[in-house]
Amino acid sequence: MSIKDAVHNAYSKWMEGTGPDRDVVISSRVRLARNLNNYPFPHFMTKDQAAEVIHAVRTAVSQKEVAEQTGRLEFIDLSELTPIERQILVEKHVVSPQHVSDPANRALVLADDESVSIMVNEEDHLRIQCLLPGFQPEETWHLANRIDDLIEKTLDYSFCEKRGYLTSCPTNVGTGLRVSVMLHLPCLVMTKQVGKIINAMSQVGLAVRGYYGEGTEAYGNLFQVSNQVTMGQTEEEIVKNLLAVTKQIIAQERTARENILKNNRHTLEDRVYRAFGTMSYARMISSGEALNNISNLRLGIELGILNNLTYNQINELIVLTRPAFLMKKAGRSLDPEERDSLRAEVIREKLLKAKAN
Amino acid sequence: MSIKDAVHNAYSKWMEGTGPDRDVVISSRVRLARNLNNYPFPHFMTKDQAAEVIHAVRTAVSQKEVAEQTGRLEFIDLSELTPIERQILVEKHVVSPQHVSDPANRALVLADDESVSIMVNEEDHLRIQCLLPGFQPEETWHLANRIDDLIEKTLDYSFCEKRGYLTSCPTNVGTGLRVSVMLHLPCLVMTKQVGKIINAMSQVGLAVRGYYGEGTEAYGNLFQVSNQVTMGQTEEEIVKNLLAVTKQIIAQERTARENILKNNRHTLEDRVYRAFGTMSYARMISSGEALNNISNLRLGIELGILNNLTYNQINELIVLTRPAFLMKKAGRSLDPEERDSLRAEVIREKLLKAKAN
Repeated sequence: MSIKDAVHNAYSKWMEGTGPDRDVVISSRVRLARNLNNYPFPHFMTKDQAAEVIHAVRTAVSQKEVAEQTGRLEFIDLSELTPIERQILVEKHVVSPQHVSDPANRALVLADDESVSIMVNEEDHLRIQCLLPGFQPEETWHLANRIDDLIEKTLDYSFCEKRGYLTSCPTNVGTGLRVSVMLHLPCLVMTKQVGKIINAMSQVGLAVRGYYGEGTEAYGNLFQVSNQVTMGQTEEEIVKNLLAVTKQIIAQERTARENILKNNRHTLEDRVYRAFGTMSYARMISSGEALNNISNLRLGIELGILNNLTYNQINELIVLTRPAFLMKKAGRSLDPEERDSLRAEVIREKLLKAKAN
Repeated sequence: MSIKDAVHNAYSKWMEGTGPDRDVVISSRVRLARNLNNYPFPHFMTKDQAAEVIHAVRTAVSQKEVAEQTGRLEFIDLSELTPIERQILVEKHVVSPQHVSDPANRALVLADDESVSIMVNEEDHLRIQCLLPGFQPEETWHLANRIDDLIEKTLDYSFCEKRGYLTSCPTNVGTGLRVSVMLHLPCLVMTKQVGKIINAMSQVGLAVRGYYGEGTEAYGNLFQVSNQVTMGQTEEEIVKNLLAVTKQIIAQERTARENILKNNRHTLEDRVYRAFGTMSYARMISSGEALNNISNLRLGIELGILNNLTYNQINELIVLTRPAFLMKKAGRSLDPEERDSLRAEVIREKLLKAKAN
């Protein structure tokens, strides 16, 4: 599948809804920040230098050995994509909003299944990202390492024996590693425990933030946990720390679910089915309401209340109902009210196939 | 159908959802207050006197001529019904809450289709009530008159040439007539015009009140318009006045609907379909929320948005979701949470048959 095709469908590897602990963990992500020797960081490059970096990365990922070991990696200049197509890649969690905000002299490398992406000339020359479904930070890290090792054979990384990998922003110096997981924590939100967890995380070098929206007011109860520190710890320590702490959060969320199920099963079922009813029939749905209803549908799957819906369908809904995806579908720019209307239509179509029992 | 059967099903003539202007008017009701000569008003009667009144009414309605002209009128002592059965008759709008609150020495006469009921020994010796679907206050009044004339042949009414029919409460003296219509005014509520209408009505001798709930905060947007004055006007004048004023309210509601449809069709459709979705899937629904959703479903029928639902089904839902009906179905007393749960179940069953388009 080409990148031009990728923006037409709501598939990415992470959206498959498979992987360990998928009742709480949506996806695991690893990002490595890398820069080339002999070139200024992207913000200080000339146009020609940027083009040389792009050329070097393109050559590196085009090696036969890379394709053999990781599958085909497609290369594209960001300027070849329309603004809406670029925004869709953000909505699919494949690139950062920063990367597509100014497409000049920037490029993207993307695996067919979108599990691997390399942003070229974002904040650093290379941002190698791997994204897998479920709770597998170690596997995701191994995958990123493999890509990193493969392309390092042809690229000359900026590396200092004392400080490690050098990066544009000091917070990434050292390992250049950011590992994160996206968690669905509806019952920790319901029981108002999320605030405490967010505070506790900073004491163990991790950050928790709402993926959509701000802080504990996260739409859709989706939270991203990631490491804050990239230096003074080995990559393995960073990954293991995140793994161990996340396991505790997963356990807390499961306990909260069991308690609510035991004491308020009716309320929980009502919540899930109301979301299904609203999503199946409403004619206008805002982006925030959609995310909150999607969260309740996902909770319905997680608790075995909704048996005809899949995690995959839920993840598709998250992406399909984002603004750029809707505009791509409409083939034109839409004002918020038009988006709310088309969003409701897209959701109805999706759920029509999945009849609630 | 016997009265004992009547409490088992949600049929009453008025619920058929037929009749003129049924897009706004649910039902038309006429009540005549009558008392017998030579007996004190019910509050001052002895047990024996009450029994004699009951006997006299029973004899009057059992005349062959009555059955021939009005269909069979069944007679029952209120004490023969259980408290829940009596409450169901209130929920079906067949008797007043006051009548069943203290069943001793009280009786009820009921037509098979429940279009005619006579409460015996409520506030007055006889309260003759006629209740027909749609906007037909004149027809309802004619029906009540016919019954009144027929039983007057064997009953000796307390009547004064100067003051008219004498009644227990001075506000009913004269014609003893109260005529009312039940209106569905969702768009006058939406546009906040209902308050003004309620105030204006009192200046023309009419009262408007929310049928469920209080004032303008009526659940289900159901309002009852009735005459306040029973003296100084002929019965015909009273009926014609209510007819003329109600016609204006009907026209105002229709104009409000057209305006909202023209300017906010999406919002209106969304409101209707959300109600359908919630009612089709929720697991707990309070009585007030049910009435409000029923109002939105009815609006969906009125505006041609929901084509697979009927007025009859909507009227059934109003009655089926009331507390006593639910307890009758459960066969036992239910606490509010149990009622909310059973109410949601009853609604789901009903709507399952009516798929939304």
